[in-house]
Amino acid sequence: MHEAFMALAVEEAEKAGKIGEVPIGAVIVHDGRVIARGHNLRETSQNPLTHAEVLAIDRASAVVGSWRLEACTLYVTLEPCAMCSGAIIMSRIPHVVYGARDPKGGTVDSLMRLLDEPRFNHRAEVTSGVLEDTCSNLLTSFFKNLRKKHKK
Amino acid sequence: MHEAFMALAVEEAEKAGKIGEVPIGAVIVHDGRVIARGHNLRETSQNPLTHAEVLAIDRASAVVGSWRLEACTLYVTLEPCAMCSGAIIMSRIPHVVYGARDPKGGTVDSLMRLLDEPRFNHRAEVTSGVLEDTCSNLLTSFFKNLRKKHKK
Repeated sequence: MHEAFMALAVEEAEKAGKIGEVPIGAVIVHDGRVIARGHNLRETSQNPLTHAEVLAIDRASAVVGSWRLEACTLYVTLEPCAMCSGAIIMSRIPHVVYGARDPKGGTVDSLMRLLDEPRFNHRAEVTSGVLEDTCSNLLTSFFKNLRKKHKK
Repeated sequence: MHEAFMALAVEEAEKAGKIGEVPIGAVIVHDGRVIARGHNLRETSQNPLTHAEVLAIDRASAVVGSWRLEACTLYVTLEPCAMCSGAIIMSRIPHVVYGARDPKGGTVDSLMRLLDEPRFNHRAEVTSGVLEDTCSNLLTSFFKNLRKKHKK
């Protein structure tokens, strides 16, 4: 089941990649139904807040009509950064599923464990490595192509 | 000079308090000019992202036309949380000035030091305690009034 929802997050990531954005995608699931999707739009929007997770949380809270996304699961292709981990905490999302690790900026497992911080007023369960290779390959080939373009 | 800009952040916090929101306010200054303001709107908007800092960063990036807020200073009445600290890092804001500490959720000095984390690709200079008593008293009296109302 995690794989099916992650595949939708991968679809979102591919939408980002097609418009020259770093391919990262997210979906939010509520009662077994996708209620929000998002993909990285930082360069297109020129807005630092437009990470896949933040866009999905923004939409999900509009759908649910609450800042509390308590019955939701967030699927995201890449391990969340500090901003997105914070947004997950602020929205009380109880379960986060991610694909690939981000050794440079990930704050769920790699650099620190913000979603498992006992001093915060919310912690999230984490499932990692779902469709890891697909999520990771998307990023690797995006950056490989980018370097090729820059060489030309 | 810090006090004058923080006084504008306090004005924002007061706007939040007047509509029943926890009184937290922020302004972003670019070249000595306020380019964005924001106040906490979490209950009004029912959106977990609508912290004062995030709203101000959202507007500032629209004004500057870039996700990089490199020549900006963020003034905020309360020490930023993890989400807002992350948004500061993502937007490359070089200088953050805050008023009161947040011992429960602050991630600049209190619980951790996200803006001074050598493994992130951005760090921000921090000035704390500017108009600290004013910023702190706003929050204390807001919560005191809330408790009074709940007793009635």
